[in-house]
Parts: sequence; structure tokens; C-alpha cells
Amino acid sequence: MAKIVIIGGSFGGLTAGFELKRLLGNKAEVTLLCDTDKFVFVPSLPWVSMGWRRPEDITIGLEKILAAGGIRFFPEAAVGVDADAAKVITAAHEFQYDYLVIATGPDLGFSSVPGFGPYGGHTECIFTLDQALKTKKAWDRFLENPGPIAVGAVQGVSCFGPAYEYAFEVDTELKRRNIRHRVPITFVTSEPYIGHFGIGGLKKSRSIMEDEFADREIKLITNQSVEEFTPDEVRLKDGTKLPFKLAMFAPPMAGVKAVFHLGNPKGFIPVDANYRHKNYKNIFSVGVAIAIAPPEQTPVPTGVPKTGYMTEHMAKYAAETIASEVLGKSLPKTGPVGALCIMDMGNTAALMKAYPVLPPRKTAELKEGKRYRWAKLAFEKYYLWKIRRGLTGLP
Amino acid sequence: MAKIVIIGGSFGGLTAGFELKRLLGNKAEVTLLCDTDKFVFVPSLPWVSMGWRRPEDITIGLEKILAAGGIRFFPEAAVGVDADAAKVITAAHEFQYDYLVIATGPDLGFSSVPGFGPYGGHTECIFTLDQALKTKKAWDRFLENPGPIAVGAVQGVSCFGPAYEYAFEVDTELKRRNIRHRVPITFVTSEPYIGHFGIGGLKKSRSIMEDEFADREIKLITNQSVEEFTPDEVRLKDGTKLPFKLAMFAPPMAGVKAVFHLGNPKGFIPVDANYRHKNYKNIFSVGVAIAIAPPEQTPVPTGVPKTGYMTEHMAKYAAETIASEVLGKSLPKTGPVGALCIMDMGNTAALMKAYPVLPPRKTAELKEGKRYRWAKLAFEKYYLWKIRRGLTGLP
Amino acid sequence: MAKIVIIGGSFGGLTAGFELKRLLGNKAEVTLLCDTDKFVFVPSLPWVSMGWRRPEDITIGLEKILAAGGIRFFPEAAVGVDADAAKVITAAHEFQYDYLVIATGPDLGFSSVPGFGPYGGHTECIFTLDQALKTKKAWDRFLENPGPIAVGAVQGVSCFGPAYEYAFEVDTELKRRNIRHRVPITFVTSEPYIGHFGIGGLKKSRSIMEDEFADREIKLITNQSVEEFTPDEVRLKDGTKLPFKLAMFAPPMAGVKAVFHLGNPKGFIPVDANYRHKNYKNIFSVGVAIAIAPPEQTPVPTGVPKTGYMTEHMAKYAAETIASEVLGKSLPKTGPVGALCIMDMGNTAALMKAYPVLPPRKTAELKEGKRYRWAKLAFEKYYLWKIRRGLTGLP
Repeated sequence: MAKIVIIGGSFGGLTAGFELKRLLGNKAEVTLLCDTDKFVFVPSLPWVSMGWRRPEDITIGLEKILAAGGIRFFPEAAVGVDADAAKVITAAHEFQYDYLVIATGPDLGFSSVPGFGPYGGHTECIFTLDQALKTKKAWDRFLENPGPIAVGAVQGVSCFGPAYEYAFEVDTELKRRNIRHRVPITFVTSEPYIGHFGIGGLKKSRSIMEDEFADREIKLITNQSVEEFTPDEVRLKDGTKLPFKLAMFAPPMAGVKAVFHLGNPKGFIPVDANYRHKNYKNIFSVGVAIAIAPPEQTPVPTGVPKTGYMTEHMAKYAAETIASEVLGKSLPKTGPVGALCIMDMGNTAALMKAYPVLPPRKTAELKEGKRYRWAKLAFEKYYLWKIRRGLTGLP
Repeated sequence: MAKIVIIGGSFGGLTAGFELKRLLGNKAEVTLLCDTDKFVFVPSLPWVSMGWRRPEDITIGLEKILAAGGIRFFPEAAVGVDADAAKVITAAHEFQYDYLVIATGPDLGFSSVPGFGPYGGHTECIFTLDQALKTKKAWDRFLENPGPIAVGAVQGVSCFGPAYEYAFEVDTELKRRNIRHRVPITFVTSEPYIGHFGIGGLKKSRSIMEDEFADREIKLITNQSVEEFTPDEVRLKDGTKLPFKLAMFAPPMAGVKAVFHLGNPKGFIPVDANYRHKNYKNIFSVGVAIAIAPPEQTPVPTGVPKTGYMTEHMAKYAAETIASEVLGKSLPKTGPVGALCIMDMGNTAALMKAYPVLPPRKTAELKEGKRYRWAKLAFEKYYLWKIRRGLTGLP
Repeated sequence: MAKIVIIGGSFGGLTAGFELKRLLGNKAEVTLLCDTDKFVFVPSLPWVSMGWRRPEDITIGLEKILAAGGIRFFPEAAVGVDADAAKVITAAHEFQYDYLVIATGPDLGFSSVPGFGPYGGHTECIFTLDQALKTKKAWDRFLENPGPIAVGAVQGVSCFGPAYEYAFEVDTELKRRNIRHRVPITFVTSEPYIGHFGIGGLKKSRSIMEDEFADREIKLITNQSVEEFTPDEVRLKDGTKLPFKLAMFAPPMAGVKAVFHLGNPKGFIPVDANYRHKNYKNIFSVGVAIAIAPPEQTPVPTGVPKTGYMTEHMAKYAAETIASEVLGKSLPKTGPVGALCIMDMGNTAALMKAYPVLPPRKTAELKEGKRYRWAKLAFEKYYLWKIRRGLTGLP
């Protein structure tokens, strides 16, 4: 019986686990390690930060859903991986593996800019549940005494979507509350132009987003680095000092500490087309943890986003590859992963489809409309319903 | 009985006068001074310059309408104000006041650029009836021997609208006459981009105006200063020499001489939220005469426009404040003024709504359509009909 | 009987010939010289290069159609013109003339950039039938092993249309073949912005083309010079090295050798409003052979395109002028020529109408739609049907 250890209990880890059990059944012992005991539906975190969702609306206990799937679960953070000895180390145990799947997600790089981040710094973030709840509190305080808002993404960021969503949602909510005129909103980004998204743009994303920000009267500062966050100012590389009462900035990402030594200089795991580690045949990695080269060198550094949809496809490919080896079958054929995501815009939404993710693309779509917002709302419910039943989230 | 003196017989002065009499009746003696004896509906001056209106279509004798409203009228220019002695001085009289309302409009700064303006310079203007009539004559001469036209706004301008209207109207009229192909039109402006309007843009104004000018094949030069006007060239700061047969440029504005000493370095009157002078409790000011800080520092200096609609709201607030003091009531609550204006585009028009005028805004609208042109035509008639009856122009 | 010699058997030469015979009948002996014995419908050459047309679909023997029109035909290249002796020299003959019509089209300037062009260089071209057939072969090879494509127009180009068409057609065909995602396409041009076309743009051509290229995810590099073509790279002046598996670049044009000495420094013939040589009263020139000053100095040099539609109008004016002299009538009144062309975009097309060609214009139109593609397809058939019958191609 093959011993398979998975680190991570989000899109990548769960999909890999369920797929491996589906393909291998009793031929594999699948163990999942996670630093929390809850699955959090990350795409809904911006809504938590706006008070549009409660934590219980978007979290599920991992224990129950993994047990139903026949997966062993240890709510323990991996503190290291000994790739040569083939074991994962936590504070309490060591887990020997025949195959390892690294689906940890990222480390968030708040130390890259002085004064950055919600833990000791001066900016909010919405990339984890804890951050989103802090941002909700900051938002409540802000509403008592509104003023300028700065939203954006610093140099080195790869995941721009939540910053866009937050800017649009804040604009929408302030209009609902009839106080938009008391809140200058500025969007600051390392992207060379708005709508770049770290993927070199998607069809008319540039002119559509330029129009959208203009229409919402959100001021744009693109192609910029942040030098420092003070308690009430964003200080940009070009000398601009942008005052704020509330600031939400996306951080750059890196590989997590436990697996950093297995990755590239940023700790991202280099993988082949089957998501297998380039040096260790029995280590696989999926999702944000892996290394993807950007489509172009941007003047201010940016990276390539990895969405949940991409991660699940990677996890399926990785699971199929492991299963084929365990069963002595030939390797499955894989292809590039595509992205399908819906960016919430508060009162409307944008559907983005890119296959492959980076240009040149086979198919590319960018559409705006209220119906995509309904689709996003429905998908959240559907996904959570499915994952509760131990089904992978992909339709 | 409170003695109230108003300087100025346009939107601000008339609205203030009618409002004060409406609120105070016999409790106030209202005296209005004006350097002309006619009310001119200024928004229609571009049409006079095109020959689409005669002066008599858009002017009304002040004597008659003020007498009907119980307002004393002296067609005399104020030459000074002695704020400490509380009197206004004209060539013939001195007027003691309990309250003074400064609604003079601006001084036009043609001396800011060599060769500028219709009085000794080489450019036309459409900001006064006299200028509009001169421009009409220049237009008639131009039509006999067409050539390049330069339209625009020099550095320091705050009122860009008439330049836009003139460019669009000239384009429309030349097409009607089937000679558009003999007339290269260039629009030169100190705005950082077209559609900025001195107010940081209004929703998609930038891309809409870029498309509009492109569609009309009017060449754009933005973010530029003018160094000099020669009899047949506009000389720009970047060295460009733009030949013209006809040039119409908007000038920067400053406070008029009689009240300059009461204002900021440009002679604009600093006022509080009730349009009361920051140092003199019994002096109020409304309209172009007041000081408004621009929303942002533009690379080439620009100012904030004050439209007739804004001016009337200011005049109402000022009149209500004076009346409440005279009647011993508590001060009225005021808010920021909004702008509602329709920019004529010759064959179509653009409706602009901004509340407040400067971003961030509570409501903002920008729409183009022939129906807005009909609305502008109708409003002119309606306003003139109303003012003839001593009613304030606001619906 | 007036001896009239025409050099060139394409739009200009044929239209001039047919018109002269129609106007003068037996009063003129019209002789046409051409370096090939076939008329090629040049606007369809991009389709030949894509394999969407065979050569026989778009060529007609000149002999037959000219004989039917009573025009003498010699399939001989002019090697020189002795303007003072009034004769055209070919390898085999000398042709004395009373009137000469130069309708040669251009020399293609591949020597302007190292490694340029299909004859010894590394880039394809689609400006002659031979080039288009070579490009078709290169395309077939490319499809076996796809990679990056570079399309564009080097410095000094005046005819940008075919480069645009080729980029759009390649994009369309690759999508049809489902391999678009394996082919990054970059469009490199000397135009200051996309949609300039050498004519200072046409209405909203800039924003329409920017959106079109974005929508097709074709990368844009504008306002650039090419320093060198290597076998697999375009080297730009700013240091960019653009790799390619297939490159198609439009060349600059000059006057052909046989008449170069009669032209300006680039060999283009200077003509008056009747298309008569400025120094030689009995020499006329039409089409690409004539000199037209560009509407503006562009940062990277560009020229003004001369389309078939323009050429035919020039040829009519020239023929009418010659005929009026032969018949002793007063000179015909001429006007500026306009352009009417349809740019194929593979799956759709753009109609462009400009009268005159350069701004300021009397009429200008730019519209996109599938119906214009149908019109282009229909016009090709109609024109070829008409020319076969010795009728000039203009509707």
C-alpha cells in the first residue's frame, strides 16, 4: 500500500486527496496535514472583510469531510520535509511517505515593505480568514470616521484579483451608504497598466478596466513601487505621499518555510508538466506553491497568479500521475492549465477565461455583467455543498 | 431696515437679489450695482460668436426686471470697496452697506501671454458679449478665406467649457458649409488630458472626449503652455509653432480690481461654507469671484470652473445666511454645490452632472445625445422667460 | 494621331489606357508597356499568401484584354525614359511618344534594412505575386513547426494596410486550426500609434485598432525602427530582440529605376493637380509613382499610402487632361482624390473612406463588420469580371 502524504487542506490538497482515494482506494494510505482544522473558501474572503459573509458561511471542518473520504487527517503544521529520507516533520510527528504532495499555498511577504501588513504594520489584507476579519473591524472603525482609502498591490505581487475586488466592493458599499463623496479612493499597483493582472492582460482588459475605474472615479496609479507604509500614508517610489484612513494592499508571495529548501530562490517548487518536482521523483506540488515564469518582464516586478481553478486542475494531474505509477500504468497526458474566474465588482462582476493562462492563448474571454455576479454567488454555495460531501469542487 | 449692496448683475447678483427680497421683503433695502445695464445669458455667447444668436436674443435690460423685484439698480461699475467703512465706491456714488454681496465675475487675464486676446492681441474670445460679437466678425472674415483654426485654453485657465463648445461648433458649422476639408482644427489645452475640465475629469470623460475629438478629426495638444500668440501662430512651450487663420483661446481668470484687495493673491475672495468672507463678517461672495482650491496639482496649472448653476446655488446659500442674520434666526445649513451643465457640441451635446463638483463625488453623470442639445436650447428660453419675471432661474 | 505611351499594366496603366481610347478613339495610338504579361489583382495578394486564393484566381493575361480595347501591348520592361527626346527605352525597342503616362508602381526598398526581404533576406513579403507565393510556402513550412510570428512595417513605409491584413488573417487562420496558443504574434510598426496608417489616423482608428489588437491578443510595438533582421530575430532600435519563426514586413517604396531621374530624391514623380510632371508638359504620372507629402512629420519616418482606388481616379484625371489637349479643349477640372478601401481582418473587415485622403477631410468613415468582408470578396470578382471586358474597374 502506497503511503501518500499531502501538505495543505485547501483547493490543492483536498482535490489531490479525494482524487487519489477515488483512483487508488485501498491501494493507498492518504494522510493530509494542515496547519488549521478548517477549510476556508478563500474566494469569499473579500466578502467577509466587507461584512457580506460570516466566517461560518465559508468554512467547513476538515476532520469530518476527510474522514468521510477515508483520508487520515492531522491538524498539524509541517515544519520541515526531509526529501532524502522521504518524511514530513511536524511538531509532534514524522510522516514517512512514498509520495508527497505539496499544496501549502504561499507565505505572504509583508516584510518586503516597511510598515506593511496587518501584523504590526499599517495596512489591511484579505488573503486569510484572520486578515479578513481584521479588515472587517478596520472597516467598521473607518465607517465611523471616513476618509481616503488606498487599495492596491505592491511590487512583486502575483495575485492582483482580490485588490481589484476590494476596490470595487468598497466603492459599491460606500455608494449604498451614500458617503462615497467623503472617500477619495486610489488604486496603486505594480502592474504596468491596469488590467494586466500579472498575465499580460486578457483581451480588452486594459481599456475595459480603465473605463471601469474612470466610471467609478477611482484614481489610478500604475507601474509604481511602494517604498513605505506609515500609519496614514503610502509613500511611493516616485515621491508621492498618498494619505489614507484605510489601506488594503496585496503582498508578494513566496514558498512556505517547511518546503522552502525544495524550491527556487523564492521557495516556489519547480515542477514538470506532471507537477512532479524537477529533482525528486516522489514529490509533487500544485497550486500557489509551484514556480511559474511570468509572460514578460514588467518594469516593476510582478508574478503570475494561480487561481483555485488552476490549482484543482494541477491537483488532478498530480493525483493521476501518482496513481498511474502506483498502478503501474503509463503516465497520463497533461496539458497546460487554464483559468476561469469571476472577479466580483460589488454590483456587477467580470468573467475571465484564459486557456492557457498565459498568452498566446487558445481561448480567451472577458465579459462583464450582473449575471456573472449571480454565478459567483451560486458557485460559492455549490462548491461548499460539494466539498462537504467529499466531492472535488470542479463541476 | 438692512442695507444690502450687491455688485454684479449676472447669475450670482440677480439670484442673490431676488432671494433676499423674497426672504426679507421690506426688512431689506437691496441695491444692485452693475457695470452694464443688461443681463447677458452668458452660456449662449458661443452661439452669438457663430451667428446662431443675435445679442437681442440673449440680453434683457436690468432696469426693468430689477424694478419689478423691488431692487434699486445703479448701472455703475464699482471702483472700490472700503471694507472697514462698509461702503462700495463707484465713480459717481458711495454706497453704505450692512451686507455686501460680491458677485462680480472675473477679470480676464489676457496679459498673461504676449499677443493674447481680442483687445490688441491676435486671438478671439467668447467670454463677454463684446468679445463674442468680435469673434462673429472674425468668423465672417475667416469664411471668405478659410485656413487653420486653433482653439484652446492657456495655462491657468479654469473655465474650459466654452473652448470645447467652440471647437465642436466650428467643426459642425464647417461641415454644414461643406468646407471642413479646408480647415485643419487643433485644440490646445493646459489640461493634463482632454476631458479633465479642471475638475480631475468626470467619469469616462477622458475616453469619451478622446473618441469625440478623434471622430471629428480635431487634432489634440494637451498638457501644454502657450508662450506667445503672433498674428498667425500659436507658439507653444515645447517649440511647436501652430499656424492659424483664426484662434479662440480661453483666458485665465482673476478677481476684479474693485475687490482684488479683499481676495487671495489672485484676487479671488476666500469664503466659508456660507459664502461669507473669511475675515469680514458682513461681506459675502458667490460665483467666479470666490476662491476654490483645485482637486489636484496639474503639471501645467489649471483651476476649477464655476458654472452658472453653481453660482446660483452659492447665491441662494449666501442670501439665506444674510436673511437669517437679519431675522435673528439660526444660520441655514449649507452643503457643497454641485454642477449641472450641458456642453453644446454643435450637432449634439453632453450632459454633465457632478455633486459635489470635485471628486470624490456622491453622484456623477456624463451622457451624450441630441436630446441634451434640445434641453440646452429649451433651458435658454425658459431661463430668459423666468428672469424677465424676476424669478430666479433655478427650476 | 497622338502617340501615347503608358508604362505599367496595373490599376493606373489600364485605367489610363482604357480611358484614353474611350475619349480619343482613333485620334490616339495608345501603347502599353509592362514588365509582365499579366494583370495581378494586388489587393488579393494577402489571400494568396494564406492559401485562400490561387494565382490563377486573381490574374488575367494583359494581351487579350488590351487587344480588345485597341491598345498596343508590349510585355517589355522600360529601362529608361529620355524625356528631352520624348522616348521610352526597353531592352528591345524605343517608343517615341507625344504623351507619356508613368504608372509603374514602386520599387520595393528591401536594401534599407540588413537581412530584409524575401530575396536573400529573412523576411517574407506580400506586395508582388512572386512574394506572396514564397510567403505561402513559408507559411506551409511554419505550420509544421509553429512558433512566434512578427508582422509589421519598417521605417519609411507608406503602405501599411497589407501588414495589418496579414496580422489579422494569420490570427484568424491559426484560430481555425486551433493552434493560436502556440504562436505569439507581435506587430511592429513605424507608425506613431496603431491606426495611423500614414494618414494621421482616420476618425477613431486609433482606439478601434488598439481594441482590435488587444482583443486578438496581438502584442503591439509602435513608433519603432528596425535595425536588422537576422534569420530568427527582429532587432529593434531600442535594443529589443524579437524572435520569430515567420516574419512578414512591409518595405518602404521608391520610384522605379527607369524613371527615377524624373522624380524627387526618392524617385517619386512630382505632379500638378492634373497629374502632369512639374517640369515636362507631356509626361504624366499616376498611382504609387507620384510624390505626395505626408500630413505630418512622424517621429519615425512614414509616408502616405496610395491605394488602387486613388490610382484609378488619378489615371482618369490624367487621361482626361491628355484627351482635352489632343482635342484642343480646355483642361478638365480636377480635385483631390479620395480613398475607399476595405481592410480584410480575416473573419471580419473594416471599411475606410477618406475624402480627401489626408486631413482635414470633407468626409471620413471607418466601420467594422462582416458585411464589409463580403463586399471585399464581391468586389474582387466584379473587378476581375469588368477588367476582362476592357472596362475600367471603377463602379
